[in-house]
Amino acid sequence: MNDKKSFETNRRSLMKGAAAGAMMAMPAAAFAESSDLAAIRKAVVAGHDATVKRLQDWIANPTIAAEKRNVEGGAEHMAMLLKEAGFQKVRKVPTDGIPGVFGTLDAGAKSWMGIYFMYDVKQFDPAEWESPPLEGRLIDKPGVGKVIMGRGAVNQKGPETAFLAALHAFRASGRKLPVNIALVAEGEEEIASPHFHQVIADPEVQAAMSKCVGVLIPSASQGSNGAVSLALGAKGAVELQLIASGERWGRGPKLDIHSSNMARVDSPAWHLVQALSTLVKEDGHTPAVEGWFENVKPLTARQKALIAEGARQSSEEAVKKTMGVQRWIEDEDYQTSLERLASQPTINIQGLVSGYTGPGGKTVLPGRAEAKIDLRLVPDMTKEEAVAKLKTHLEKHGFGDIEVNVSGGYGPTETPEDSALVRAEQAVLTRAGITYSMVPRMAGSWPGVVFTGPPLKLPAAQFGIGRGEGAHAPNEFFVIESSNPKVAGIDEASVFFADFLYQVASMK
Amino acid sequence: MNDKKSFETNRRSLMKGAAAGAMMAMPAAAFAESSDLAAIRKAVVAGHDATVKRLQDWIANPTIAAEKRNVEGGAEHMAMLLKEAGFQKVRKVPTDGIPGVFGTLDAGAKSWMGIYFMYDVKQFDPAEWESPPLEGRLIDKPGVGKVIMGRGAVNQKGPETAFLAALHAFRASGRKLPVNIALVAEGEEEIASPHFHQVIADPEVQAAMSKCVGVLIPSASQGSNGAVSLALGAKGAVELQLIASGERWGRGPKLDIHSSNMARVDSPAWHLVQALSTLVKEDGHTPAVEGWFENVKPLTARQKALIAEGARQSSEEAVKKTMGVQRWIEDEDYQTSLERLASQPTINIQGLVSGYTGPGGKTVLPGRAEAKIDLRLVPDMTKEEAVAKLKTHLEKHGFGDIEVNVSGGYGPTETPEDSALVRAEQAVLTRAGITYSMVPRMAGSWPGVVFTGPPLKLPAAQFGIGRGEGAHAPNEFFVIESSNPKVAGIDEASVFFADFLYQVASMK
Repeated sequence: MNDKKSFETNRRSLMKGAAAGAMMAMPAAAFAESSDLAAIRKAVVAGHDATVKRLQDWIANPTIAAEKRNVEGGAEHMAMLLKEAGFQKVRKVPTDGIPGVFGTLDAGAKSWMGIYFMYDVKQFDPAEWESPPLEGRLIDKPGVGKVIMGRGAVNQKGPETAFLAALHAFRASGRKLPVNIALVAEGEEEIASPHFHQVIADPEVQAAMSKCVGVLIPSASQGSNGAVSLALGAKGAVELQLIASGERWGRGPKLDIHSSNMARVDSPAWHLVQALSTLVKEDGHTPAVEGWFENVKPLTARQKALIAEGARQSSEEAVKKTMGVQRWIEDEDYQTSLERLASQPTINIQGLVSGYTGPGGKTVLPGRAEAKIDLRLVPDMTKEEAVAKLKTHLEKHGFGDIEVNVSGGYGPTETPEDSALVRAEQAVLTRAGITYSMVPRMAGSWPGVVFTGPPLKLPAAQFGIGRGEGAHAPNEFFVIESSNPKVAGIDEASVFFADFLYQVASMK
Repeated sequence: MNDKKSFETNRRSLMKGAAAGAMMAMPAAAFAESSDLAAIRKAVVAGHDATVKRLQDWIANPTIAAEKRNVEGGAEHMAMLLKEAGFQKVRKVPTDGIPGVFGTLDAGAKSWMGIYFMYDVKQFDPAEWESPPLEGRLIDKPGVGKVIMGRGAVNQKGPETAFLAALHAFRASGRKLPVNIALVAEGEEEIASPHFHQVIADPEVQAAMSKCVGVLIPSASQGSNGAVSLALGAKGAVELQLIASGERWGRGPKLDIHSSNMARVDSPAWHLVQALSTLVKEDGHTPAVEGWFENVKPLTARQKALIAEGARQSSEEAVKKTMGVQRWIEDEDYQTSLERLASQPTINIQGLVSGYTGPGGKTVLPGRAEAKIDLRLVPDMTKEEAVAKLKTHLEKHGFGDIEVNVSGGYGPTETPEDSALVRAEQAVLTRAGITYSMVPRMAGSWPGVVFTGPPLKLPAAQFGIGRGEGAHAPNEFFVIESSNPKVAGIDEASVFFADFLYQVASMK
């Protein structure tokens, strides 16, 4: 039943069953271990309300690394969630920053699966939300279905809760997990994982992870049309702040002074603007830092073919509309924009802040100016290389006094198309009748390089069905019950993870 | 008694008298109209507590134009203060923005004196203050004396209250004002007076002002050493915001989007940075806008001589320390820095704001970026000329989409050294034994050009004794009782204004 229709039928059956409070059998051929999976499905549906409650409670307890908000409470909550899901060993892993959490669930199976969780969320401003961001309210969203709206709903607590619900369902249905699980969670993903390598370097963590077939981060990978993007890698990211200050420069004022002094006192704000203007070319986007493209690998023919396929399967207009964008860079076509997204290293301004930032003006000459920057890296660039080149560039152009404060980052991730992990993903998607495309490289970033790079060198990928929107934005949501038959709700996403674990266990 | 010592003696005598609750006679020869002035001095001292209370109440009722805060309440308060001080006719003068207030005090004298008040204050953040900025607490400041700390204390409510106290004292002592007063007040000085020309254009206001000998803005002009700077003019100022937005540009995103899209979507933040970088030369301060210096008049030999004299009379180290500055532009000497301050038009960045401005980073590509700018203009530049040239420059360099939002501004002010106003200032300073220097042009700005320019063409100047610090900054204060014998407290400042009015009445 490798077509789309079977998935839609299954999904509808499951939801009807859930709605009626009774278990509807799904076609037995839909999954590998049919009788076990049927029992698990039943348990997922029975646990639906508890799962939703678990997600809401988690949303209500946010850790925000940039604000050092709820550091211990978030780690405790994460550890509790793992214990409740059946992990026998759970412990916090201290770092120089926010602690990681590590857990193992040894089911006595032959193989181990690695799971990566992030328990932190992005900052938020409640004033921008139509529903309180920490309440995780259930909302009927026309054309989408019943959703949970809240910070972290889709990035990443919703998909992670769906994964945990699968583990709960294995236990509730008395089914043995087909693989053992080693799970590692971090609380600094949203500040680019500055200490996650320390978590992985923990001997016990490293020993457990090195036994794994691969590492998966539960993800809501379906688009609005139900199609899944299967990523074979991700760009690396470095977050840093460039700070010009009179104090450090030895020129200009230490604090803000009256702006009339611009006639005789150097301006850290102008200094920063001039430094920034050397970082990209006149086109406004191509990095102009010396040697930036030295280690950039061009896309392969296979990667370009995958992107072309992806371009055909998605709607340029829908993407532009969602983003509020009228044109791509240089008025290029959609496929070229997708190739750029996969292949181009970038230097982005996330934010500018200097002096007076309120309404209107204020006659000050600021003592400090800051640009918040992120770098996106492609193979074979490394974080260390990028930061070193940036610093050398600034020094060479007379801006050596500008502070380069690297707050986090990691290199790019690559996972081979023929790895067991990717083949297992393809198998369960095909079995569920879900259209998918292979994306050679996500433009977004995650710290998978700690798994794919040395010493572990494991395949690692974001994976899962279900859907949400608004990561890093107001009104973030995750679909609980989908009104679109092609899109999974949280229960189907859980069952799908269960099927994936069976699939992994069966891989050669 | 043209020496410094007489003033110190006078000041000490006055304060001792006030402290003892008894009137101490000052040497009769110290002022032009000795018996009248003695009575006025007595009334000033008797009214001291009421004056302080009047200043505190005014500080507690701030109008902040940039925030549209307390627009009507501030104008009402201003009108009330004038009525209480004896102005017979007082009315609000509507504008397209915050209303002005106009009042006349016709004492049946031969000549009229114009007075300019501002009743608005700069924005403030209470968190940055060591004393609540609206309470106007009396604080003992070591080495300075008893001060009132609060927003607007020195800029400009303290000196203005000292002037009003002089008028109260004339009435309380039964003395006739030697000149009539036409007073015009505005509530938008801190946003560069965008509508003050409308106040002046009011037929009744213009008719009254055109009869005046000149226009004075009460000011605390003494430095920490007691010396007064007598300004013969001021730079003009234009405040504007340069705003790059995806919406207006038709490129880049309308709102903030995920920063990974930097690979394929244009960035309004980079666009703004590139536009800004064309506005000043590589030195980081010289305006690079085409034709910017076309109408700039070089300093005259007399102006340079006055600046040299001023440099000799003030302490470079003290100025640098107060400002938190180690070096002037290009490591120039103090006199050159003062020449720049008087002669150089500037383009200053007051603030930068785009995207994420909180702690650390946030992976967004902002849809909007804003630079808050002020331009300082010297004779014979005009506001209209400067704005037009800036816009032409941006268009020519490919930044015609960037919005130039002019929030206020006016051209430079010049008052002849041989005008009756300036001669009267010199006379009372000399009589009081106060050291003064002539400053050809203040680097700070005030909308005096509405008086000095057509159609009024009056001499206009900031003038007064007394002292304060922290204009536009936290912990702004105005000295009530000075512990430095060379510096006036509020009562001496009031008596000095009374003497000035006698002097004006006697001018030929």
